Amino acid sequence: LDYQHVQVPFEITLWIMLASLAKIGFHLYNKLPSVVPESCLLIFVGLIMGGIIYGLNDRSPPVMDSDIFFLYLLPPIVLDAGYFMPSRPFFENIGTILLYAVVGTIWNVFGIGFSLYGICQVKAFRLQDVSLLHNLLFGSLIAAVDPVAVLAVFEEIHVNEKLHILVFGESLLNDAVTVVLYKLFRSFCEMPTIKSVDIFAGVGKFFVVGLGGVLVGLSFGFTAAFTTRFTKDIRVIEPLFVFLYSYLSYLTAEMFHLSGIVAIISCAMGMKRYVEANISLKSHTTVKYFMKMWSSVSDTLIFIFLGVSTIGENHEWNWPYICFTVIFCLIWRALGVLVLTFFVNRFHVNTVTSKDQFIIAYGGLRGAICFSLVFLLPDFRRKKLFIAATTVVILFTVFIQGMTIRPLVDLLAVKRKRESAPTVGEQIHIRFLDHLLAGIEDISGHWGQYYWKDKLEYFNSKYLQKILLREYDQPKSSIVLLYEKLERKHAMELAQAGQLGHGPAHPSFLCFAFLCSSSDRTVLRDQKLEDTLNPDVLNNMQEILARNLYRIRRTGPAYNRHTLPGDSEPTEQAKEILILRHKSL
Amino acid sequence: LDYQHVQVPFEITLWIMLASLAKIGFHLYNKLPSVVPESCLLIFVGLIMGGIIYGLNDRSPPVMDSDIFFLYLLPPIVLDAGYFMPSRPFFENIGTILLYAVVGTIWNVFGIGFSLYGICQVKAFRLQDVSLLHNLLFGSLIAAVDPVAVLAVFEEIHVNEKLHILVFGESLLNDAVTVVLYKLFRSFCEMPTIKSVDIFAGVGKFFVVGLGGVLVGLSFGFTAAFTTRFTKDIRVIEPLFVFLYSYLSYLTAEMFHLSGIVAIISCAMGMKRYVEANISLKSHTTVKYFMKMWSSVSDTLIFIFLGVSTIGENHEWNWPYICFTVIFCLIWRALGVLVLTFFVNRFHVNTVTSKDQFIIAYGGLRGAICFSLVFLLPDFRRKKLFIAATTVVILFTVFIQGMTIRPLVDLLAVKRKRESAPTVGEQIHIRFLDHLLAGIEDISGHWGQYYWKDKLEYFNSKYLQKILLREYDQPKSSIVLLYEKLERKHAMELAQAGQLGHGPAHPSFLCFAFLCSSSDRTVLRDQKLEDTLNPDVLNNMQEILARNLYRIRRTGPAYNRHTLPGDSEPTEQAKEILILRHKSL
Repeated sequence: LDYQHVQVPFEITLWIMLASLAKIGFHLYNKLPSVVPESCLLIFVGLIMGGIIYGLNDRSPPVMDSDIFFLYLLPPIVLDAGYFMPSRPFFENIGTILLYAVVGTIWNVFGIGFSLYGICQVKAFRLQDVSLLHNLLFGSLIAAVDPVAVLAVFEEIHVNEKLHILVFGESLLNDAVTVVLYKLFRSFCEMPTIKSVDIFAGVGKFFVVGLGGVLVGLSFGFTAAFTTRFTKDIRVIEPLFVFLYSYLSYLTAEMFHLSGIVAIISCAMGMKRYVEANISLKSHTTVKYFMKMWSSVSDTLIFIFLGVSTIGENHEWNWPYICFTVIFCLIWRALGVLVLTFFVNRFHVNTVTSKDQFIIAYGGLRGAICFSLVFLLPDFRRKKLFIAATTVVILFTVFIQGMTIRPLVDLLAVKRKRESAPTVGEQIHIRFLDHLLAGIEDISGHWGQYYWKDKLEYFNSKYLQKILLREYDQPKSSIVLLYEKLERKHAMELAQAGQLGHGPAHPSFLCFAFLCSSSDRTVLRDQKLEDTLNPDVLNNMQEILARNLYRIRRTGPAYNRHTLPGDSEPTEQAKEILILRHKSL
Repeated sequence: LDYQHVQVPFEITLWIMLASLAKIGFHLYNKLPSVVPESCLLIFVGLIMGGIIYGLNDRSPPVMDSDIFFLYLLPPIVLDAGYFMPSRPFFENIGTILLYAVVGTIWNVFGIGFSLYGICQVKAFRLQDVSLLHNLLFGSLIAAVDPVAVLAVFEEIHVNEKLHILVFGESLLNDAVTVVLYKLFRSFCEMPTIKSVDIFAGVGKFFVVGLGGVLVGLSFGFTAAFTTRFTKDIRVIEPLFVFLYSYLSYLTAEMFHLSGIVAIISCAMGMKRYVEANISLKSHTTVKYFMKMWSSVSDTLIFIFLGVSTIGENHEWNWPYICFTVIFCLIWRALGVLVLTFFVNRFHVNTVTSKDQFIIAYGGLRGAICFSLVFLLPDFRRKKLFIAATTVVILFTVFIQGMTIRPLVDLLAVKRKRESAPTVGEQIHIRFLDHLLAGIEDISGHWGQYYWKDKLEYFNSKYLQKILLREYDQPKSSIVLLYEKLERKHAMELAQAGQLGHGPAHPSFLCFAFLCSSSDRTVLRDQKLEDTLNPDVLNNMQEILARNLYRIRRTGPAYNRHTLPGDSEPTEQAKEILILRHKSL
């Protein structure tokens, strides 16, 4: 037996296996996950595992290594979150999200830090040796809402899209603030004296860390998109690039002390559109599936490790400090949400209701990020107290808040997510309104979100797509893509039901087919029409249709700020007819 | 800048990125890969990289760590090989493959070892200090054909299925022999005296290592299949189990000093059938795609590292020893193939032609396994000579043989792989012949492969499928599955061409649809027939068809050794009609 030799991969595989089996176990009993969030169950499994290890070895089980957490477990989850981020609600609410993430987190950090310092002054609690800086440091790590915990709970309760993106977006973007404040206070703790210059430098760092992360992420994202232009002959390694580049963006950002989370999210959001257009359908399935799988495993491992790490002798118990930490976390978050939402609602038509505010405040779950940060603290006398307090806050938020949030959502009748995807009609409507609003904003000289969106879209179609996409044709609108997807789905269902027609198409569908793209028409004609129609009639029909097709598109043009109505009309028309003809040959 | 912190994952990611980009680079120039095998190009890239590192640092670049190779790079490739192993030709030629792998490898080891010892006795070569045992040890690591190198070359030249499986199967299964002989000679080298007991123990070990590997692999494979029975509600982690269990089988086998390669192949081949039936279509795509992707990356990394590790000061150059090693490798392999094939051809109708023999002998490429094994050797005076000889043999076989094998295959007009998949007619024919031959073997009392195959199939359907499959219905025959797959493909094509019929099915297809499974019929009837046919006629038709369908199956029953012709006929018939009726309601 040579266990030493295979120990590392063997143990890693076993942990992943345990996590996966635990997941299967929960889902075998359908009732369990509908009452208790999976995260709670997993922590519970972790606690049992930790208890067993503790009992057998008679010493504390190994705690989750912060390096493993930040380098290997966190990136897949954040990548998944960024890649599947619903970009429309995210960008529509970006202002509110940033407000919560930046101002809200700072508010919480200082609120919790100062009030805990107040508690420490009470002599009866015997906490006088905890300095203000240490309290602020503790505040900076305990204040941040955790994306992993939020995702785990909010994915199961299906609140409406806006509420979800507000909580989730905040939890992702506050990373930049947390990184800055945590490192700032940590270095302040080690400095003999603090100059006001240092404080200003800290404020400046916010922008560097956040915007730097975005920049790193976007550059890696665009490189990834550019790389997938050339993978046509080796489809099999396409999915790899999505993972490699996003991971590199995370690592690079971490290397330069920028926000890795912000970087990987920018990378994923930046590349998604182009990568999806470049890679094959199967590669895309693999990317999606593997990302989900990976993040789900990471997530499971994190919660199990959280449970395991809780057991042991790392804790110093001090009732007042721990209780007041929990209370202050709740109070300051609630106050912060109330105050910030008050300002947000003054400037927005689509307000955040008081129910939504309650859920935002209540959904501020803490998780593994706090836990890893508290273990990364430099050793000092009260580190174990901080660890105990962090553990309690995490368990309190995940168990108590996580388990009660679903009944509360039911009780308050919070608006839920709509079950069905928007219809094509709705989509066309939304698109139309976007163009309309962009036009209005442009005319009125107001640089609102529609103006910027339109500007970005122009830049995208004029430069980015040409560089990043393999086949830069006329880009297909998302509605056409949706139609194609529905067709594909329909075809699969028909095939499964064994109802697929094998003979000539029904005459009434020929007309329909003519309205489809011209390449389809060619296929159709090659197969069937030549037998039934004489070529002259066919050509005639085709010409009429081609012209009509063009005219239809001419009379209802999409609004575009960058082309004037009569601009270069005759040549474009001729060109388009030529293209259509060329295709139909 | 904090490079230390992210160094490990960053460098791993960069290496993978380099490998992937190199792959893309080759495929951009279509002509290159058609002349030079990718493996040669990758080694070349590695050589350049190694040269750069050597030039910049002025010391040997890091060699490929044997642990990394055996624990992380090799398993994905072998898993891929096992999972996509064409099981029919493999089992049809299992005897020949085992003969080549076991007897052939032993022949080569001792042949090369003894003749190199002979060379060492020539005083002019100054090699007298290399003992017989050291030569045999060297023989044991240099004799084994490398699956990674074979796969890389043979995948590109498309020889016929039998030839491919003979070379590739040998390269996989000789691992057991290599492991035993290598470890045996290594321990002999360290022993002061060798007793005859040790030699017998060594012979006994062959069976333990090989069969133990099969046993470990199969048990993990069946556990994997059993686990996927319960993943219906969390489809997303289904692919994970395929990877986890097969990796665990490899690690477990390595832990007990069994053959990891044999274990992972048995695991993959054992689970494939059941896992595929249990998991969803998308999970299956992900498994297939990811396996291919992973093995392709591993493969690329191995060849690049091979190139990098070649550069440096690890080599001791001795012209005669190195040249004779290459010559003996060629001669003994050629002789071995000739002698073994002579025996094989005496007992088989379907003989191995002399052209095939030449390609088998010529395709005995050496690769990264030898390379890792030679670095694992305990330190002794001539280790650097062995490293140099191994490197030369690898480079010679991969470059010279790998690059000339394609022209030779063309020149000799070796039978190629057929381009198209077998038609349904052929498949039915093959199936029929299988049953016929199983019957003949059974009657004549000859326990041939068909007898065992039939026995296994019975065991499978009687016990294994019931335990391992989620929905154990009447199992679908592979022809029905093929039909379904073709239907699906056809539907996708139709959808892409925009020709999908949206209206009622053509009347002539109703008859066809009736011949499909009864559940389809129900769907069809619900949707369309009720409008066009009156229910009485319909019922009448259905009854006639159901009875006819049954009668057709009765008059042409599949041969089954385990049911007697008149056995329990009336009750079965009644039951089946009942089932058919029940389904059609």
